[in-house]
Amino acid sequence: MPAVYSRPERTNRLGTETAYAVSLEASQLKAKGKTIYPFHIGDLNFSTPQVVIDAAKKSLDAGKTGYCPAAGIPELRKALAQRIGGDRGIEYTMENVSVQPGGKPVIGKFLLSVVEDGEEVLYPSPGYPIYESLIDYHGGVPKAYTYIDTGSEFKIDIDQIRSLITPKTKVLIYNNPSNPMGALSSPEEMQALADLCIQHDLWVLSDEPYFDIVYDDAKFEHRSIASLPGMQDRTVILYTFSKNYAMTGWRVGAAIGPKEVIDQITKLNTNMEACTSHFLQHASVECLEKRKQTDQFLFDMLAELKDRRDLLVKLVNEVPGFSCFTPPSTFYLCVKVTKAMDMLGFKNIEDFRRSILAETGVSFCTREHFGEAQSFDTDHYVRFAYSSASQETIKTALTVLKDYMTSKTQ
Amino acid sequence: MPAVYSRPERTNRLGTETAYAVSLEASQLKAKGKTIYPFHIGDLNFSTPQVVIDAAKKSLDAGKTGYCPAAGIPELRKALAQRIGGDRGIEYTMENVSVQPGGKPVIGKFLLSVVEDGEEVLYPSPGYPIYESLIDYHGGVPKAYTYIDTGSEFKIDIDQIRSLITPKTKVLIYNNPSNPMGALSSPEEMQALADLCIQHDLWVLSDEPYFDIVYDDAKFEHRSIASLPGMQDRTVILYTFSKNYAMTGWRVGAAIGPKEVIDQITKLNTNMEACTSHFLQHASVECLEKRKQTDQFLFDMLAELKDRRDLLVKLVNEVPGFSCFTPPSTFYLCVKVTKAMDMLGFKNIEDFRRSILAETGVSFCTREHFGEAQSFDTDHYVRFAYSSASQETIKTALTVLKDYMTSKTQ
Ligand SMILES: Cc1ncc(COP(=O)(O)O)c(C=O)c1O
Ligand SMILES: Cc1ncc(COP(=O)(O)O)c(C=O)c1O
Repeated sequence: MPAVYSRPERTNRLGTETAYAVSLEASQLKAKGKTIYPFHIGDLNFSTPQVVIDAAKKSLDAGKTGYCPAAGIPELRKALAQRIGGDRGIEYTMENVSVQPGGKPVIGKFLLSVVEDGEEVLYPSPGYPIYESLIDYHGGVPKAYTYIDTGSEFKIDIDQIRSLITPKTKVLIYNNPSNPMGALSSPEEMQALADLCIQHDLWVLSDEPYFDIVYDDAKFEHRSIASLPGMQDRTVILYTFSKNYAMTGWRVGAAIGPKEVIDQITKLNTNMEACTSHFLQHASVECLEKRKQTDQFLFDMLAELKDRRDLLVKLVNEVPGFSCFTPPSTFYLCVKVTKAMDMLGFKNIEDFRRSILAETGVSFCTREHFGEAQSFDTDHYVRFAYSSASQETIKTALTVLKDYMTSKTQ
Repeated sequence: MPAVYSRPERTNRLGTETAYAVSLEASQLKAKGKTIYPFHIGDLNFSTPQVVIDAAKKSLDAGKTGYCPAAGIPELRKALAQRIGGDRGIEYTMENVSVQPGGKPVIGKFLLSVVEDGEEVLYPSPGYPIYESLIDYHGGVPKAYTYIDTGSEFKIDIDQIRSLITPKTKVLIYNNPSNPMGALSSPEEMQALADLCIQHDLWVLSDEPYFDIVYDDAKFEHRSIASLPGMQDRTVILYTFSKNYAMTGWRVGAAIGPKEVIDQITKLNTNMEACTSHFLQHASVECLEKRKQTDQFLFDMLAELKDRRDLLVKLVNEVPGFSCFTPPSTFYLCVKVTKAMDMLGFKNIEDFRRSILAETGVSFCTREHFGEAQSFDTDHYVRFAYSSASQETIKTALTVLKDYMTSKTQ
């Protein structure tokens, strides 16, 4: 008789990334012959810089194929300390760095290393869905905070955060620039958050995959909350090579922060994955050191992404019922669709999304892919990722969408 | 004021691999000019097969650098299902396979997916230290079982296992061929374990990194417990490319087992690391498919390892106080040193190890690096890993050790 598999209780608390379900739906429609315009995944249709690819090959040839330290090779820890600190105006040494197989692994390891069972964690919703999932899974209590739509930007609702803080609050998860909002904190907003963290003795997970994906027309200089006075010792930065250098599938990132927490995170690496791929770490060192090539890569990518953004913002606003403003950062566009849903008679945003996908082939994620809908939500939003859509695709897709919405509203 | 870092309670239950501390000691002595003969780490001084390196370069050039599915690319899941099933005489499909960033990640994810808080897990001690650490960390109750030294082989103490089983026992962790013992189960031993698992409805984590590292003079054919009647549906295999193909630093492995558990493991991947490096997965497919080259590689490596084993066994038995028999598998040699410790007047095995290292430069791990010493331990053992020591090194090291022990006993 086969064993009966009864899932442990804790598995009920584990969420997932429902955006993958959208990928699946889209590819099923595509297999049936439907033309799909994919705006649902935050992957990039740029190639990793050649200098990094060459470095990976070189380290393979040099036989960098054995185990290496759980915290990463010293060269990469040093290079990251210097670069991440340098770009943010703070000092780190290699002791502050634990290399990880991607940026994502930092989230769970940070929570396991800092949050006691039953302690509360503030996290953005809409936000990266893994926050909610792992806070809950690892025994913390998730407390969602949101953004305010001012009509020209998204601001973090600081008053709400203040009202959510209790003696049990331990951590603030802060994602700036933010996915899916494309928002960038003003200096005042960041300082207000830092003040709250210091006042209530909170730890911060500063999730910074889009730190360098800020456009030259952004109103605010980009910086890290770790650089504000009193913050470095209570902040762990999630760094990743994924977005800056079109390396999403490489899986190299790092946790950067106070040594005691970093040591604890590395101990989890020893238990969970031994180390991050050895030769990929050497390639990552060259990615940081060959700045002439990799800075140019980032510069060119940002120029192209900005053109896409401007085109997409313009065309989205021509679609009946859809509206958005120009975001200063990331490659996501958060679009208000409350009116479009009304026009088509939808109450449920997932029904709306599925209908638009089936009718037009335009595929995007909705608010529901970024954490559970909250009682404080007033409008409906969807997210367009323009990181892997050419300007041609953007034009065609938005024309199809506009024609469809126009036909429905006449 | 900096935040005070108070480690959550659960961090007290997290162990580590103390073998790394031996590496550190050895390298510190080396830095001081001491000649070190390293037998402490299970890494390999062979190069990854060229065909796999070439495949990695090819997939890099082909731009396989974006995200891929959390469970792995379908090509690799299919190739693993076919190969792992084929080699073991059982049928798997890609639904049974979840690709992982190494073999190690399977241990924690399996425990999280199968063991409820407070349930008991049987694990070998001496054994891979991560078992004990993660059973405890993830809320299970570790129950150590041991091996019996018959004078010519190590046998699992089945009676002890039987006596340890309670209504709360949920899982047997079974590592065959075994680290650090170098033991290989007889068909009777494996069947006795399977009978117990079926009788008491246990799940099995079959940790099989050394499945192919079996020498041609082994008395028993190597097989997997998953292939015994009634076992496939209750067994998850830990597979890794690390040891067979000298790919320890690549970090590619897999969990293979019943779909419901595999789906749960994959859900953990979505939360913990998104996916395993994309282009490394394509290279791994070629590793499995280009059998002409990779089988030859394994064949040649086994021939060299066997020569090292035979040399090492011969020389170890010439060292006063040291004794061992010829193990049928792995690249580890488990050596009895009870007499040697007596001769030198040591009660504590770590003191003995450190003294030998300081006096002779010969560096090995002890029983204490493979789980906590148990009340049932009667003799003292150390482990020599000969995976990265040339025959030259073996000769020199064992001469030094023999001379030292001889000088001490005259
Ligand atoms: C906000 C946020 N955090 C973390 C990550 C994880 O990045 P990585 O792919 O390096 O794991 C992402 C990726 O999309 C993200 O959007
Ligand atoms: C018994 C055992 N299990 C699992 C592993 C993990 O292998 P990997 O390096 O692929 O994570 C090892 C590695 O030494 C091992 O000896």
